[in-house]
Amino acid sequence: MKNVKSEVRAISPYTLKEYDYEIKINQNENPYDVPIELKRKILDFAFERSWSRYPPFVPEELQKRLADYTGWYPEGILVGNGSNELIQSLLTIFLKKGDTLVLPSPTFTVYRLIGTVLGAEVVEVPLTHDYTFDCDALEKKFLDRGNMLIICSPNNPTGTLYPLERLQKLIEKTDKPVILDEAYFEFSRKTAVGLLKNNDNLIVFRTFSKAFSLAGLRVGYGLMSPELAKEAGKAKLPYNINFLSIAAAITLLENRHILEQSVNEIVKERERLMPAMNEIKDVTVFPSDANFILFKTPYDSDIVFEKILRDGVLVRNLSSNPTLANTLRVTVSKPSDNKIFIDSLTRVMGELAKEG
Amino acid sequence: MKNVKSEVRAISPYTLKEYDYEIKINQNENPYDVPIELKRKILDFAFERSWSRYPPFVPEELQKRLADYTGWYPEGILVGNGSNELIQSLLTIFLKKGDTLVLPSPTFTVYRLIGTVLGAEVVEVPLTHDYTFDCDALEKKFLDRGNMLIICSPNNPTGTLYPLERLQKLIEKTDKPVILDEAYFEFSRKTAVGLLKNNDNLIVFRTFSKAFSLAGLRVGYGLMSPELAKEAGKAKLPYNINFLSIAAAITLLENRHILEQSVNEIVKERERLMPAMNEIKDVTVFPSDANFILFKTPYDSDIVFEKILRDGVLVRNLSSNPTLANTLRVTVSKPSDNKIFIDSLTRVMGELAKEG
Repeated sequence: MKNVKSEVRAISPYTLKEYDYEIKINQNENPYDVPIELKRKILDFAFERSWSRYPPFVPEELQKRLADYTGWYPEGILVGNGSNELIQSLLTIFLKKGDTLVLPSPTFTVYRLIGTVLGAEVVEVPLTHDYTFDCDALEKKFLDRGNMLIICSPNNPTGTLYPLERLQKLIEKTDKPVILDEAYFEFSRKTAVGLLKNNDNLIVFRTFSKAFSLAGLRVGYGLMSPELAKEAGKAKLPYNINFLSIAAAITLLENRHILEQSVNEIVKERERLMPAMNEIKDVTVFPSDANFILFKTPYDSDIVFEKILRDGVLVRNLSSNPTLANTLRVTVSKPSDNKIFIDSLTRVMGELAKEG
Repeated sequence: MKNVKSEVRAISPYTLKEYDYEIKINQNENPYDVPIELKRKILDFAFERSWSRYPPFVPEELQKRLADYTGWYPEGILVGNGSNELIQSLLTIFLKKGDTLVLPSPTFTVYRLIGTVLGAEVVEVPLTHDYTFDCDALEKKFLDRGNMLIICSPNNPTGTLYPLERLQKLIEKTDKPVILDEAYFEFSRKTAVGLLKNNDNLIVFRTFSKAFSLAGLRVGYGLMSPELAKEAGKAKLPYNINFLSIAAAITLLENRHILEQSVNEIVKERERLMPAMNEIKDVTVFPSDANFILFKTPYDSDIVFEKILRDGVLVRNLSSNPTLANTLRVTVSKPSDNKIFIDSLTRVMGELAKEG
């Protein structure tokens, strides 16, 4: 293994422990499956289509429908096998070994992983004590010595939005690339797509994994200047999305009025859940614009996590990151699931208060 | 765009022109679709499964079935979104900017593309005049100054096998990584898997896109030492294969006795087609162990290609590569398709002889 790059050998593999659960609210998945009639339509297409033939070389129909959905040019849209793949393509075309990738911290762990594997130096700028973005510090670090910046907004796992007016000022001050990951856009309804036209150093990522209920089929997309899309396309592998995922994404875009109902339901539940959680003794909620909620307790998250799991409820324990000590993240789910979670958290907090 | 790496800007994008055709024998696809009863089984599973949930973090069941199929350890098997993705992972963990990637030439174009995007220097060692491997020259170049070697065997687009005994000698002389891409293994029935045990610098790639009729769903896999699989796994994106492609691959492995019939049929047709093509005046066939045949004529391939296409038959014109001047590649298809191709090629050669 001595020929493997030292920066790769130094990484601890990204792993996920498996648990038994009844309610899974740990991965920001959509609790509402794709409606049966749409599944049937997509699978009927798959039945008729030959599986031995390659997918289209360029998913043009999907690009056109995404252009219609986002208001951006189809030639400026790249579709990936999840947005992770596009993050990898963009980092690959911009970052040379030793270049600096600036990230807020904590954020989605895959950015750091990809940057490190590619040989970049990853510099993290901490969020403030209440887990909002420290825009001044982030700007300073990026303008002083960054080659690239990635911001997830709303941020995973904190749910915080990066203020659009701050983003605009920042991208106008530099020509270095800035990626804005809007994976949770449909739950925040705030987007930087309007800034793309005048700023060809801005790249906006989106995904079908959250609002569109398609995490299982892996579809993400990136919006950028058509010129940049041409360059990034060179680092994207040919035939990167299978024919079924393309067909599913097209059908869901055509029928997005149906999915809007479940997104509205999730947003409504989030607004109900945040104050309800805050009312539980010892629980502090951080305001979220996404489909998940970060919360803190005075107790060790490993213990809180295990006690909630005993009620069959799987949330995300974030304690492995020291800046997230005593926090956990819960995905907003269906009202019935959310009720079970609230009851469990109430019981666990009471139990821990008594023990303490 | 000035921040995009110069080596990326220098690449011409990989494109594919589209044509109208009746018989598509240009991409080494399997002419036989996945049998209807297996499609139905896989799609029934997809109907029941929630699409909004992520695929398994590690596709363990598929790894186990691949271990059974290949005779290799499940922990030494990585599954990718097509084998292209795994080529990218392996190149990423081994190659630093300026490192030398050695390739025979001509070969599958994606190796050069990925190597170049990653900043490696790609050094090509020409095949001999009859399109077989120049093993001596390849070994010398690799041992002298290469950091990594990729051999496609049977080679695309020539159909030639790399002699196993030469491969064995080569990998025993060095600890530098050697990738053997066995995408067409099922049609050659010769494999280097037996060499993995004693050579942890050997990596063998396979795919479901050819013999398993699954090009549309993108599944490839790599066999390597479990220790190396751990390192390469760090450069592979989490959730890189969707749940449906995993289920399809598992079902096809379970039922591989059904698919063997179509592979046998294709091999039989190849053995029939090669002499039949050779009998056509002015056509020279290069012996192939894959599901395609490379052939040469005294005429400009652009003209031969267009004339065959006028009969509704789409083959692959390879003339853009100067070392492949006057050659074309045809995928072995069903007997009825092959007959139409042979008739077309016979007619076109006659026409060109008269014109000339």
